[in-house]
Amino acid sequence: MMSRYQRLTPERMEEIKEIVGKAQVLSETAIPEAYAYDAGTQKTGTRDYPEAVVLPANAGEIAAIMKWANRHRIPVTPRGGGSGLAGGAVPVNGGIALDLRRMNRIIHVDKAARYMVVEPAARTLDIQQEANRHGLLYAGDPCSSDDCVIAGNIATNAGGNRAVKYGVTADQVYELEIVTPQGEIVALGGRLKKNSTGYGLVKLIAGSEGTLGIITRITLKLQKLAPLVPSFLAVFPNLPAAADFVGALLDDGILDPISLEIIDRETLLALERYRQDKLFVGQIGDALIIQLEAATEAELAQKRQRLQEIAASRQCLGVDAVNSEKIWQARRVWGKGIEMDHPVGASDDIVVPVDALVALIPVLEKLVAEFHFEFRIAGHAGDGNVHLRILPGTVPLPEWEGKLQEFRKKLYAAVYTLGGRLSGEHGIGIKRKQALREIINPVELELMKSVKKAFDPHLILNPGKIFDVDTEETV
Amino acid sequence: MMSRYQRLTPERMEEIKEIVGKAQVLSETAIPEAYAYDAGTQKTGTRDYPEAVVLPANAGEIAAIMKWANRHRIPVTPRGGGSGLAGGAVPVNGGIALDLRRMNRIIHVDKAARYMVVEPAARTLDIQQEANRHGLLYAGDPCSSDDCVIAGNIATNAGGNRAVKYGVTADQVYELEIVTPQGEIVALGGRLKKNSTGYGLVKLIAGSEGTLGIITRITLKLQKLAPLVPSFLAVFPNLPAAADFVGALLDDGILDPISLEIIDRETLLALERYRQDKLFVGQIGDALIIQLEAATEAELAQKRQRLQEIAASRQCLGVDAVNSEKIWQARRVWGKGIEMDHPVGASDDIVVPVDALVALIPVLEKLVAEFHFEFRIAGHAGDGNVHLRILPGTVPLPEWEGKLQEFRKKLYAAVYTLGGRLSGEHGIGIKRKQALREIINPVELELMKSVKKAFDPHLILNPGKIFDVDTEETV
Repeated sequence: MMSRYQRLTPERMEEIKEIVGKAQVLSETAIPEAYAYDAGTQKTGTRDYPEAVVLPANAGEIAAIMKWANRHRIPVTPRGGGSGLAGGAVPVNGGIALDLRRMNRIIHVDKAARYMVVEPAARTLDIQQEANRHGLLYAGDPCSSDDCVIAGNIATNAGGNRAVKYGVTADQVYELEIVTPQGEIVALGGRLKKNSTGYGLVKLIAGSEGTLGIITRITLKLQKLAPLVPSFLAVFPNLPAAADFVGALLDDGILDPISLEIIDRETLLALERYRQDKLFVGQIGDALIIQLEAATEAELAQKRQRLQEIAASRQCLGVDAVNSEKIWQARRVWGKGIEMDHPVGASDDIVVPVDALVALIPVLEKLVAEFHFEFRIAGHAGDGNVHLRILPGTVPLPEWEGKLQEFRKKLYAAVYTLGGRLSGEHGIGIKRKQALREIINPVELELMKSVKKAFDPHLILNPGKIFDVDTEETV
Repeated sequence: MMSRYQRLTPERMEEIKEIVGKAQVLSETAIPEAYAYDAGTQKTGTRDYPEAVVLPANAGEIAAIMKWANRHRIPVTPRGGGSGLAGGAVPVNGGIALDLRRMNRIIHVDKAARYMVVEPAARTLDIQQEANRHGLLYAGDPCSSDDCVIAGNIATNAGGNRAVKYGVTADQVYELEIVTPQGEIVALGGRLKKNSTGYGLVKLIAGSEGTLGIITRITLKLQKLAPLVPSFLAVFPNLPAAADFVGALLDDGILDPISLEIIDRETLLALERYRQDKLFVGQIGDALIIQLEAATEAELAQKRQRLQEIAASRQCLGVDAVNSEKIWQARRVWGKGIEMDHPVGASDDIVVPVDALVALIPVLEKLVAEFHFEFRIAGHAGDGNVHLRILPGTVPLPEWEGKLQEFRKKLYAAVYTLGGRLSGEHGIGIKRKQALREIINPVELELMKSVKKAFDPHLILNPGKIFDVDTEETV
């Protein structure tokens, strides 16, 4: 079958250069290899090269590119930090990789009204630090904050470490300026706590993985910064006991934790070796990292006491205050710790209802044993969203890929039976497209496709992600 | 121009009766007048009769009706409690009024996992009370809770009195089962704190005023119920001082109010007469109703002290604890109090950034004076969403409607200049359709229309609401 897309001929390359300037267009051998993958596909070795890398300066240039690309049927794949884990920024149909890195400014912070206006490629860590400098909190906190950018967080609706209390990235967004797939610039949403003035398009764009619009400016909600934000490590004899503790903490009327992360014993031990540092006081076991907020020392004392009371009433080996910086730095690089010993493995990002975590853990343990795999876990237990690293265990490497596919089918079926979904925050991209098609209600998939076609009739914006609208584009 | 819709001939009437049963179809003189209006259009005297009223028993019947209606191009207008204020449930193109009242069950409450499954016409008050019976809170709380139903709250994305802390109705929804305009039944969303598995369609359906799908089952989030939920009345010399106080309360790191309602002095006095009851201790003036939550008496004492400290530092005449039941019952019927003395008037539901309320009040006062109108205000000040009752003042009645139109144009322009929107929670419906078209960015409007067409290619579901997709349907 013929592709629905056209190629970037030399004449067309010249036309792009007229829009953004010659220096902002890379082609052929000038294209760095990194544009052919993201942080997820880098590991799998998959490579899909764009025909050109284009670095626009502003929304006006992007609008011009999109109008032009529609006329010529050239696919355009937006790219932020390249830190995605599902291949969302990989140009699977060639065409233009639209690198937003020049649009990385923090435009404005309003301390009194608690908001910040930023460009799409503002780094999440920079946004967090800028908020802190104003005595405020930007609540979004993906573990990749030091190399991801805000538009990517919005595109995948990343959750991160503080979603327990503050919600996901979409909940941090007041207003989005986007360039539509057809090349119009439009501001959606508003700095409003409620708004019933037509369809809520901001929350549709969030999580649409760059398939419905290119984000060009964002107004972010900021929070009051709590004076005290201590971290604790609670240690358990096994993972089910840790999962059970999550419910107890969330049921409590006083604690109101901001983070509740689960992490297994082996990973903690590996992280101590990786970072060559004793991370933890006392014993190590399957654990929860718990972060609390308090306005006063008195409130903190009350919360600390409550935490100990809950620990005493459950199968908990102990709860200790830990160095926040150390524990979170370790948490952020959990995968590196595992990779030292286990270079081969596969990652997942499943999510279940928080109360179903207790049921998920034994299902997971049983399934892993059945396949003679091993697994490591580090995840946002307080959101029911766990990151898994599945390891080959005793399975010979030639059988690994095949068995993994079989394992995932069973895992995903179990997750859906528990009311869960494939991805809590990494997105579908190209990585889970096949799995999504196999497991989603086809009516829901058709609704999604119809929305995509409504926004992008020529299917030129980030094609081949989440789903294939028709069979033509996968040729 | 020809209508795109067909009429309900006697043969077609018979076909509908085959789907839902003869007793569940009303036609011609058997149709009660109430189906020709909602709580908003009742006052304006506008009447639009359906050709038939159909009362389905379940999603299966609704799916069959929608498939049939698509085949025959019959408009279908869903109806919940009929308490809407923007004409969303008014069948402006005739056809079928789909009354969901038989689907009003509370299906299931899970106390441990804190959620509730309900049918679309479950009354909001019943949902609140059922949650309370389980020691939990359903946080949605529109002032019409005793006669509105949950699907209507979702359709308008109603905010209500507790949005300050708990967000709007969309934030209370885990999962929606809908019947699509084309007659498919599909469950969207999940009981998940985060989900990056394709487009977030639940938040698109919420607030779409019944134009994208008919809600047939809802899984609602429930909250822990705070042991103490006291109310206070803070009294001010004027409205700007009350508006200024809102910011001070929201800035505070300890208070974390759940409700912050503004209400003017005249309305409070009228409500005392209407309810023939002294509502308030001490003086009456322009006021804020403040509701707090506390887990313990000690926490409440701390919050009460903080409230007094803030009051002392601002232009506040005093803050007193008030009887919660009395004050909220009065708040809910604020319009009735005004109507005793002022039967003629017009309502608005504007929303601005919370910090812009301070700027909005003087603009409003000046504009009202310029037109020789009067106004009353009662609203969700903590969300920047205020309900206005505009009164003719000294303007002769024959000039009222014309002047009101002129006034609204200026008011809406000022609201948009402040970053606000036409409706915070009542929706656009038919009431604000013209105003929306005049003020919205046409690109945003086109995106909304394209989504509507994607979901409902024959434009049969609740046509003529929010916007007209093309000119044909307004004939």
